Amino acid sequence: MKRRDFVRDISMAAAGVSLFSPSRLFAQQAATKVRLGIIGVGLRGQNHLHNALERSDVDVVAICDIDPYMLQSAKNIITKSGKPMPKIFIGDPHAYRDLLKEKDLDGILIATPWEWHTPMVLDGLSAGIKYVATEVVLGITLQDHWDVVKAAEEHHANVMMLENVCYRQDVMAIMQMVRQGMFGELIHMEGGYQHDLRGIKLNDGKPGNGVGVEFGEKAFSEARWRTNHSVYRNGNLYPTHGIGPIAEMLGINYGNRFVSLTSMASKSRGMHEYIIKHGGEDHPNAKVRFKLGDMVTTMIKTSNEETILLQLDTSLPRPYSLGFRVQGTKGIWMDVNHSLYLEGLSAKPDEWEDAKPYLEKYDHPLWKQYAKEAEGAGHGGMDFFVLRAFIESIKQQTPTPMDVYDAAAWSAITPLSEMSIELGGQPVEFPDFTGGQWMYRKTRFE
Amino acid sequence: MKRRDFVRDISMAAAGVSLFSPSRLFAQQAATKVRLGIIGVGLRGQNHLHNALERSDVDVVAICDIDPYMLQSAKNIITKSGKPMPKIFIGDPHAYRDLLKEKDLDGILIATPWEWHTPMVLDGLSAGIKYVATEVVLGITLQDHWDVVKAAEEHHANVMMLENVCYRQDVMAIMQMVRQGMFGELIHMEGGYQHDLRGIKLNDGKPGNGVGVEFGEKAFSEARWRTNHSVYRNGNLYPTHGIGPIAEMLGINYGNRFVSLTSMASKSRGMHEYIIKHGGEDHPNAKVRFKLGDMVTTMIKTSNEETILLQLDTSLPRPYSLGFRVQGTKGIWMDVNHSLYLEGLSAKPDEWEDAKPYLEKYDHPLWKQYAKEAEGAGHGGMDFFVLRAFIESIKQQTPTPMDVYDAAAWSAITPLSEMSIELGGQPVEFPDFTGGQWMYRKTRFE
Repeated sequence: MKRRDFVRDISMAAAGVSLFSPSRLFAQQAATKVRLGIIGVGLRGQNHLHNALERSDVDVVAICDIDPYMLQSAKNIITKSGKPMPKIFIGDPHAYRDLLKEKDLDGILIATPWEWHTPMVLDGLSAGIKYVATEVVLGITLQDHWDVVKAAEEHHANVMMLENVCYRQDVMAIMQMVRQGMFGELIHMEGGYQHDLRGIKLNDGKPGNGVGVEFGEKAFSEARWRTNHSVYRNGNLYPTHGIGPIAEMLGINYGNRFVSLTSMASKSRGMHEYIIKHGGEDHPNAKVRFKLGDMVTTMIKTSNEETILLQLDTSLPRPYSLGFRVQGTKGIWMDVNHSLYLEGLSAKPDEWEDAKPYLEKYDHPLWKQYAKEAEGAGHGGMDFFVLRAFIESIKQQTPTPMDVYDAAAWSAITPLSEMSIELGGQPVEFPDFTGGQWMYRKTRFE
Repeated sequence: MKRRDFVRDISMAAAGVSLFSPSRLFAQQAATKVRLGIIGVGLRGQNHLHNALERSDVDVVAICDIDPYMLQSAKNIITKSGKPMPKIFIGDPHAYRDLLKEKDLDGILIATPWEWHTPMVLDGLSAGIKYVATEVVLGITLQDHWDVVKAAEEHHANVMMLENVCYRQDVMAIMQMVRQGMFGELIHMEGGYQHDLRGIKLNDGKPGNGVGVEFGEKAFSEARWRTNHSVYRNGNLYPTHGIGPIAEMLGINYGNRFVSLTSMASKSRGMHEYIIKHGGEDHPNAKVRFKLGDMVTTMIKTSNEETILLQLDTSLPRPYSLGFRVQGTKGIWMDVNHSLYLEGLSAKPDEWEDAKPYLEKYDHPLWKQYAKEAEGAGHGGMDFFVLRAFIESIKQQTPTPMDVYDAAAWSAITPLSEMSIELGGQPVEFPDFTGGQWMYRKTRFE
């Protein structure tokens, strides 16, 4: 089957025709549960594990990690849930390949360091698994993204990136308003990841953040691996929380696509100063040079001629904000001031209005239905919805609402941004991972 | 005198040595008043005229305009002030050249359409006037900016662009805080001009905005000329209100400079839709294609490796906001949410705090001294301060606090932005109008 045929099949599936041969139809197992394997049960994976255990339609049958501490934490969560203990895989970094040999896995969920996502997705697809979910991001290099897209097509399988912010309650309400045309024709969008991660990228090796200036082997959790990306790379390293919702609203890969990108990075000061302040000038890490600029700004142009502004701001003291802005011919929403303005609707001309009444009025049906279940799922409930979307797709044997093309387009911003910065802010061409099918595809995002 | 000598003289003047020969020393006329000519008394010029008439140290001795309606309005303002009627110049578009022949003009102030600023400044300098103030912007093409810089150097004269936002009360308070190091080392800055101008760029030809869809000869005030720039040009056409304060805080031209710039523009919809909505599809202006994108985003990199984000957003419905953001290693201020965060000072970690108490505490000495006089001066008092700065420089025969190099650097963003957009977002080199002297210059901005 060629990629075009595969895409066509996706469209057929969207129209109600199954992508899969009858023998694989999940309908045969409708009474059973989704058999899920989880690769990586660090803090993020444990969050997904907890949410999966909460679900009556999921059996977590296998988990894998290389870190005994994290595995023990995961086991405690499972024991506390009263659910059966899954098969546990531990060992060298490739122990996950043994997990992939497990029979009758309906899907796997990957929550490992960024650099492991691509090889694990590829191995999962090679093992015949038809539903592969991975935490953000999809890959490191641009080639990684192509490799995953091609593999998903070759194996007729689903790869979903678990971009939870697409399910944030206010974001979904705004998306409802966008779809109803309340902002008019969209013109300009903004988003990003603005979150002071210094206390997460650096710690003292013990659970609990905010103390210590170690990273790598001496550190705990994300600081063991994530920090190295700030040492060696300069670009928008974490674009998907901002771009996911924007892409959904603009219909990227669904009648629209990213065309070009330019990025610019500021000097790098935040991480170094934090180390000096909390570890002293004599600490070995005071000598580390962080390549990642404290502020990375990225502009993207779409084929429908909207502009998108993305920011990455993770090394300076600041309040958390994804910095969303949705702007069209009829109005504007910004989340930093919790306000919007809709021409003709807002009470006072040219004055901001509290967004809250609108967010309540246009609350997404999914949130109306599942708000209670989502409580405590993590990140304000978003994590419930993104896992639910993956599991429901498996149960119904439909393509995932965010697919491999979405994952690739959103995540490829990182290597493209690195390239543009290396080239002094040159615009770089955005690949079309859909091979032209973006003109025809219809979204399945609710 | 070569440009380097001139610049050195400016530095000497800053050190208390006069730039001018003894025969021209204003001290000789200390008892007299500044003799000011105003070229252009449209709505903006009338504002400056009113403020000049309010001052006891200024004689408005000549005014010029080509529009009888605006001249009559200006005369009414003068009559109401009780001050003597100045000499009035009217006629063809070059009537201002007769005004420039007036003897003993200490300075002129230009408030005409953008495309007239450069020729009027150049003619003023050629006429021997040593203090020339012009409304924003300084010129249209990049060459315009060079021409003015070279002419100012050749004539040993001052050219000051009346960038009033540098004197905005909150902006000056934040500048005080920046100078005291409260934001740490600056990393990233944002500003812009986000103001729905549709009702200003289009009207019915009668005073008062908000009705009608005419521009050009059938229109009133700015719509007579400003709108054409939206028809024929695509770039950040109005950068100085955003960049002025940012440049002052970053010390641009004073140990720092703009190095490169990239711009991206969205599609253009706002002006056209406004015309359709308010004039109907059959109105002749419904056929006009506006080249200016509704949202123009610009990134600038400085030699000290800060990044700057500028936005121009004038054709869509939205609340007014210059969108300032000042961010350093110790904190962040944003004006859209009236908030700041200063590490170690703000009460709650990672939470926004109302900026108001800080803005009051760090109120600039100029505002403390002149807040009452500034009342009613226009644009929240800023216009009082920017005119005062110009007049005081003449009285003291010192260089203006914002000089021709500042004007050129800030205003050149427009043609550079147009170039970058034409080139598909290519970075363009920022000229160094100071000829290397930016490394040595000390600011005179208070």
